[in-house]
Amino acid sequence: MTRVTATYEIESPAGIARGAEAIAGEQSTGTFGNVPLETDALRARHGARIEELTVTGTSDRPALPCRTTGDSYERGVARISWPIENFGTQLPTLLATVAGNLFELADLSAVRLTDLDLPKVFAATNPGPQFGARGTKQAIGGHDGPLIGTIIKPCVGLTPEATAELVREMAEAGIDFIKDDELQANGPHNPLAARVAAVQRVLNDHEDKTGRRVIYAYNITDEIDQMWRNLDLLAEHGAFCPMVCVNAVGLSGLRAVRERSPFMIHGHRAGWGLYSRSPDIGISFQVWQKLWRLAGADHLHVNGLASKFTEEDRIVASSARSVQAPVFTDGGPEYVAMPVYSSAQTIWQIAPAQAVLGNDDFIYCAGGGIQGHPDGPGAGVTALRQAADAARDGIPVDRYADTHRALRVAMETYKRPILGEIPLD
Amino acid sequence: MTRVTATYEIESPAGIARGAEAIAGEQSTGTFGNVPLETDALRARHGARIEELTVTGTSDRPALPCRTTGDSYERGVARISWPIENFGTQLPTLLATVAGNLFELADLSAVRLTDLDLPKVFAATNPGPQFGARGTKQAIGGHDGPLIGTIIKPCVGLTPEATAELVREMAEAGIDFIKDDELQANGPHNPLAARVAAVQRVLNDHEDKTGRRVIYAYNITDEIDQMWRNLDLLAEHGAFCPMVCVNAVGLSGLRAVRERSPFMIHGHRAGWGLYSRSPDIGISFQVWQKLWRLAGADHLHVNGLASKFTEEDRIVASSARSVQAPVFTDGGPEYVAMPVYSSAQTIWQIAPAQAVLGNDDFIYCAGGGIQGHPDGPGAGVTALRQAADAARDGIPVDRYADTHRALRVAMETYKRPILGEIPLD
Repeated sequence: MTRVTATYEIESPAGIARGAEAIAGEQSTGTFGNVPLETDALRARHGARIEELTVTGTSDRPALPCRTTGDSYERGVARISWPIENFGTQLPTLLATVAGNLFELADLSAVRLTDLDLPKVFAATNPGPQFGARGTKQAIGGHDGPLIGTIIKPCVGLTPEATAELVREMAEAGIDFIKDDELQANGPHNPLAARVAAVQRVLNDHEDKTGRRVIYAYNITDEIDQMWRNLDLLAEHGAFCPMVCVNAVGLSGLRAVRERSPFMIHGHRAGWGLYSRSPDIGISFQVWQKLWRLAGADHLHVNGLASKFTEEDRIVASSARSVQAPVFTDGGPEYVAMPVYSSAQTIWQIAPAQAVLGNDDFIYCAGGGIQGHPDGPGAGVTALRQAADAARDGIPVDRYADTHRALRVAMETYKRPILGEIPLD
Repeated sequence: MTRVTATYEIESPAGIARGAEAIAGEQSTGTFGNVPLETDALRARHGARIEELTVTGTSDRPALPCRTTGDSYERGVARISWPIENFGTQLPTLLATVAGNLFELADLSAVRLTDLDLPKVFAATNPGPQFGARGTKQAIGGHDGPLIGTIIKPCVGLTPEATAELVREMAEAGIDFIKDDELQANGPHNPLAARVAAVQRVLNDHEDKTGRRVIYAYNITDEIDQMWRNLDLLAEHGAFCPMVCVNAVGLSGLRAVRERSPFMIHGHRAGWGLYSRSPDIGISFQVWQKLWRLAGADHLHVNGLASKFTEEDRIVASSARSVQAPVFTDGGPEYVAMPVYSSAQTIWQIAPAQAVLGNDDFIYCAGGGIQGHPDGPGAGVTALRQAADAARDGIPVDRYADTHRALRVAMETYKRPILGEIPLD
C-alpha cells in the first residue's frame, strides 16, 4: 500500500522508541482507552508504522517543558509512515496527521518534523507550480542569468504614486523583478487597486518604450474571495505576478489562489522563524516547501546568505537547493520552484548563491545593495549582473572587477560579509 | 489614530529595548539601509511604537540559537502598537505584521507573541461566530447544562456504516454532541459523502423517534472549493455542523468556510502544540482564539483539565475563559465562542471545567469516560450530567453520588486525576 513517511527529531523521557510509538498511535488508530472496534485488522490497515529509529544522544533535562518526567531524556530521529488510505491526497488532512496533535504529547520533550517523503500519487490532486523558473523567464521574453530584483522600501507608508515613482527609477535602472513588502497589501493609505493602476502604468509604458518586461509581484494577501478579486484586478491592468504570504493565508489559501491564477505565484513565507527557530519544536523548510510547491507556489523565499536574519547560511543553502529538487520520492512531475534570495544582499553573495544551486534559476533581491551604489541604481543593477556573469564563467569577482567598473565600485562600497560554512550537498 | 497593540515576551543580547526596536522597525517602516523616502512624517504616521517595556530577568545564555551574541541576555515583556492604517482590518496582513519576520530577527534570542489588543473597527469586515453557545443550544431545541459530547474512535479506519453504528449507540445513550476525529476527513476508506449519509440517516431517524436532536461535527477539512462542496453535502442530508482543522486550512480557509456556512463551525486546533509548547517561541492561544473567533469559529478546542497532553491546567483554564471574553478592547460585539474540553475527560473534571467558566456554555467531550462505564454508555452520559448538575447546584460530587447511582458507579470506576493549580482569573 502506498505510504507517506515523515521524519522527526524527537526527545523523550521514556526513550525515543516509546516517543515514536506515541506519535504513531496518537496520529493513526491509537486510543488511550479501551476501544473494541480497534481490531488487529484495522490496525494493520490504518496504523502508522515506525520505520526507523536512530538514537543521537541523551540529556539530563528536558528540552521543552514536559508533563512526563524521567531520569534522562533520550534524543534521536524517528521515521514514521502512514498509509495514504487514511487521508487520501489532500494536503490539509495530511498536515493534521503528520503535524497534528503530536506536538503536545506528554511523552515527548522535543519534536521537530524535519522531512516528508511523498509519493507521486499526490500529483493527481495537487497541481504544483504553473511557471517555475522556466515559465517565469519566458514570461519576460526569456532571460540569461538570475533575475535581479528589489523590494519597495519603506515597507509601508508610501502612496501608490510614490511607489510608482520608485518603480520607474528601478525599471530605468534595468531591474528584472520588483516586489511589494509583505507588510504592504491593501492598507487604506496605499490601496492595492490604486497601486496596481499606478505601478502597472509605469511598467506597461516601460515595456512599450524599451521592449523590456519587468515582473512586479503585487502582495494580494487577503481573504480568499478578495484574493480572487485581486487576481482579476491584476489581469485588468496587465500585471502578471501575485504575491501571497503563505503563512498568513494558510496552505488552502495558497491553493485557492493557484486554482484561479493564470499567473506565476510569488510565495512569501513571512513568519517563517516561528517554524524554524527552535531546535526543539517546529517544522523544517524541507517539509513546508514541498507542501507549498504542491499547492502551486512558483517562487519561494529562502532568506539570503549572510542576511540580517539569524538563520544559518547552511540552512539557507539547503533551503534554496530543496525547492529545485524533485518533490516526490518515486518520480512523477518534479514541480520545481524558483528560490528567492533576499535580505541584506549585495554583490558579495551572488557568486555563493549561484554556487549553492549550480544554476541561474533564482531571484536575487537587493535593496541597499542596489540603491546604495555611488553611481546610482542603474550601476547597482549592472554590478550585480557583472558579479553573476563572473560567477557563471568561473572568474574570481576581484579579477572580473578589473575590467568592469560598476562591479569594482560596488566592491569598494559594500563591506564583504563573512559567510557561514556551507556543506556541499 | 486607531491602533493595534501586540504583547511579546522577548529576550535579547542587546537588551529588550533594542529587541523591541528591532521588531517595531522590521515590522513597519524600518529598513536596514539608507532609504531617502523614509521621512519623519512617514515614520510618525506608519511606524510601530513601543508602548511599554518590562524587564523580567537576565540569563547568561540565549534561549534560542542566535546569530547575535552578548555577555548576557535580557528578558522581558514588550508592548508594541501599529496604526491600522498600515493594514486595514484584514486579518492575513495583520498576522504577517504582528507575527511576521520578527521571529527570525538576530537581535532576539526568544520571542513569543502573547496577546493582541484589537479595536472594534475589526468587526466591520470580520463576521465573528454565527452561533456561539446560545445559537448552538438553540439549534438542538434548547439545552440545560453543558453539552456532553464524544469523539468517534478509533480515529481512522472505520467504515461509514461502522461509524453510523457507533453513532446510533451514542445517540441512544443520550449524547448531545459527536465529532469526527481530526484525522478522519475524506480518506478513501471512509469518504465524507458516505459517512454523512450513513450517520445522518441514524440521527435524523433518532430525532423523528425521540424529538432529540444530536449535533454531529463532520470534519470537512479540505481545500477551499471542496470545503464549500462539503457544506452543500451537509445541507442535503440535514446535517448542521462542519468541523474545520484551523491550522490545517489556515485563517483564510476558516473564514472562507464562514462565508458560505449557514451552520455552526466547530474549530479544531490540531497541531496546536507547535505554537504553544516552547516558552521561547510561539503564539499564545490568547492571540489565536481572537483571530479564529473573528474569522467565524463557534466552538474552539482548549484541551481538557488533567488531559493526556502536556499543556498545564492553568493554561487550559485560561484558554477556556478567553474564548468567552469580549474579543475587542473597546466594546463592540463580543463574538463569544464556546470552549470545547477534550482528552482523557471523565466525571472528575466536569466540576472544575464548569468552575473555571462560571457557566454551562461549554462542550465536554469524553471517550473512555463514557464508553468505559460498567453500566454502558447510557449510564456514562447520565453520570456526566449528574456531575454537571451537582457542580451547578454547588453540591460536592461525593454527596450527590449518594443519591445518583450512575455517578456513584463512575466514581468507583474512574481514577480521580490530580489537577494542576488553576489561578482565579
